[in-house]
Amino acid sequence: MDYDKLALDLHAKNRGKITTQLRDTDLDKTKLSAYYTPGVAAVSRVIADDPSQLPVYTWTNNLVAVISDGSAVLGLGNIGPRGSMPVMEGKSLLFKHFADIDSIPIILDVHTPDEIVATVKAIAPSFGAINLEDIAAPQCFEIEDRLKAELPVPVFHDDQHGTAVVTLAGLINAAKVTSRKLADSKFVVVGAGAAGTAITKLLKLYGVGQILAVDSKGIISHNRTDLNEAKMRLLEHADGSVNGSLADALDGADVFIGVSQPDLLNEELIGKMTKNPIVFAMANPKPEIMPDIAKAAGVAVIATGRSDFPNQVNNAIAFPGIFRGALDNKVRTITDEHKLAAAEAIAALVENPTPEEIIPSVFDERLVPAIAAVIK
Amino acid sequence: MDYDKLALDLHAKNRGKITTQLRDTDLDKTKLSAYYTPGVAAVSRVIADDPSQLPVYTWTNNLVAVISDGSAVLGLGNIGPRGSMPVMEGKSLLFKHFADIDSIPIILDVHTPDEIVATVKAIAPSFGAINLEDIAAPQCFEIEDRLKAELPVPVFHDDQHGTAVVTLAGLINAAKVTSRKLADSKFVVVGAGAAGTAITKLLKLYGVGQILAVDSKGIISHNRTDLNEAKMRLLEHADGSVNGSLADALDGADVFIGVSQPDLLNEELIGKMTKNPIVFAMANPKPEIMPDIAKAAGVAVIATGRSDFPNQVNNAIAFPGIFRGALDNKVRTITDEHKLAAAEAIAALVENPTPEEIIPSVFDERLVPAIAAVIK
Repeated sequence: MDYDKLALDLHAKNRGKITTQLRDTDLDKTKLSAYYTPGVAAVSRVIADDPSQLPVYTWTNNLVAVISDGSAVLGLGNIGPRGSMPVMEGKSLLFKHFADIDSIPIILDVHTPDEIVATVKAIAPSFGAINLEDIAAPQCFEIEDRLKAELPVPVFHDDQHGTAVVTLAGLINAAKVTSRKLADSKFVVVGAGAAGTAITKLLKLYGVGQILAVDSKGIISHNRTDLNEAKMRLLEHADGSVNGSLADALDGADVFIGVSQPDLLNEELIGKMTKNPIVFAMANPKPEIMPDIAKAAGVAVIATGRSDFPNQVNNAIAFPGIFRGALDNKVRTITDEHKLAAAEAIAALVENPTPEEIIPSVFDERLVPAIAAVIK
Repeated sequence: MDYDKLALDLHAKNRGKITTQLRDTDLDKTKLSAYYTPGVAAVSRVIADDPSQLPVYTWTNNLVAVISDGSAVLGLGNIGPRGSMPVMEGKSLLFKHFADIDSIPIILDVHTPDEIVATVKAIAPSFGAINLEDIAAPQCFEIEDRLKAELPVPVFHDDQHGTAVVTLAGLINAAKVTSRKLADSKFVVVGAGAAGTAITKLLKLYGVGQILAVDSKGIISHNRTDLNEAKMRLLEHADGSVNGSLADALDGADVFIGVSQPDLLNEELIGKMTKNPIVFAMANPKPEIMPDIAKAAGVAVIATGRSDFPNQVNNAIAFPGIFRGALDNKVRTITDEHKLAAAEAIAALVENPTPEEIIPSVFDERLVPAIAAVIK
């Protein structure tokens, strides 16, 4: 399937993917005088007197901003805000399609944490929630932390937490399939960017066994002298007492989690892991190892980021329901407990996990209500 | 009509006024893979390589941001961004209803010109055009000037220019009705805020006779020592050589233009004007003089800002067509010449002007195409 040509054709033909519509299309002069002047002044006065009424009378109750500076877009890297726009508008399409959430792409022509935080804070009253997207690590951590602390609406960096939630959901079922306990399993997480860091944190919070985090230079350990602040903080969650290479890390590991680069994993490295290991190879678009090669090498369960293989770790499984719940239940902060509960809710939708089905399809209509119910 | 109650009821019932929709609602798995990953990457690459393709492939080609900090909302004054939201969302409703333009309300939690300019510049790539709304004078002048100079998309402060365009359109026909030439007429503009300043500038540009600008302290003249920078700049367009009160200004005036406060004008003051004068009493919601009193005092043509009297000076007559033209014709800057042409296009839609009809109805469907055709 030539998705490139189809994508260019469809985008050009429809001149984008989203549009605005009126909630009340049966307008007459009287209604216009109520929706705009003079009637609207009464609504403005009510909100000016009590700002908590904003979501009662305006579209903010169902509105998410999808915000990016275009610094880490898909597998394309730092292509800038304009290049990121089709992806952000696509995210808004997914919000509407899967969860009936109004959503607006906002692309930013600024890139430092200070500038991004100042801009998002300045426009924040316009929205009911903030989805940060495709902002590069390590800046994304500081930006999310500061916005979460300073804004009264949910702020959620989906590249981190959406990926982590779906990964954990898949691991819960992969453990069942391979008769493991996650609490007793050894994990290797490769890739210390936004997703890898969030996965490591959430796994530890869930209570898994040892986690070794690996970057391009090997195991991230306390002995390393080249760690930036984000990687130092990662060691609050990963085991920093072990030194060595990726091969060293994989020795006796039960689970490989890759958010790194194509073809990083091979038969020899898999041979170092325990029997019937679990591999989540989520590099996009080409995974760390292709599923057929992994299976031939003895991997019991393999998940990727791709829709053309079983077990797709797709953020769209989680974020529509998470935001649906946050908006409907007036949740101010999406907490770690929310993320754990969302992962368990997703996992529970697969009644009988098999090596080919540990994660529900993104098209499973039970997803949004099941997840939204636990974000409260 | 109790518009207040109807407005509160309708806003609460519909939970706002606008919503997002998908341009292509016939989605399947294949199309989702084209609108989002993996296909969308091809679109992102095209735009990253050539940012001028942004409007070809994304919704920015038909998208206007309605931006306010809530510092000068309707007749309510500085009620803050949240209180302004129903008005901004209402403006987005008008954009869609009258000109099929997608439009998003963005309310700002910052208020200095530096902060507002920085914020709007940061988010500007998200939009095809910027409508500034209900930002207080004199800050609005600096903000608009800087954004126009620094952004590659149209920036239009509607409180200034929309009002000025419709006012000039009405005056062109009022002159016909009273057999005057605007070039030989004397004007008194009361109110030196955003609208009054823009009206004065546009009238002078059109080539009218003497204009005296009046604020709460009398005629704005070079002898005044209390003028801020914005009022000093107003004297580039108004006649600053005359001193005195409003009554002095009205002596022999042909046209009164009020964007000030209720009940400012009375029979005695009208008696100082020429015979059959023209009065535009646009204070909202209560005009400087009520139409029946004005007519009894000898006024030949009266216009107000209200929909319940003839000759409503309503910004919604102009801005939908101006933005429609700017977007469709890829206009980078809305110039003075565009505003003059828009006023003339509006005036020309009234084939036979009478004292009761100098301005077309906002519901005249010829408006948007007629105006859009001259914004090129």
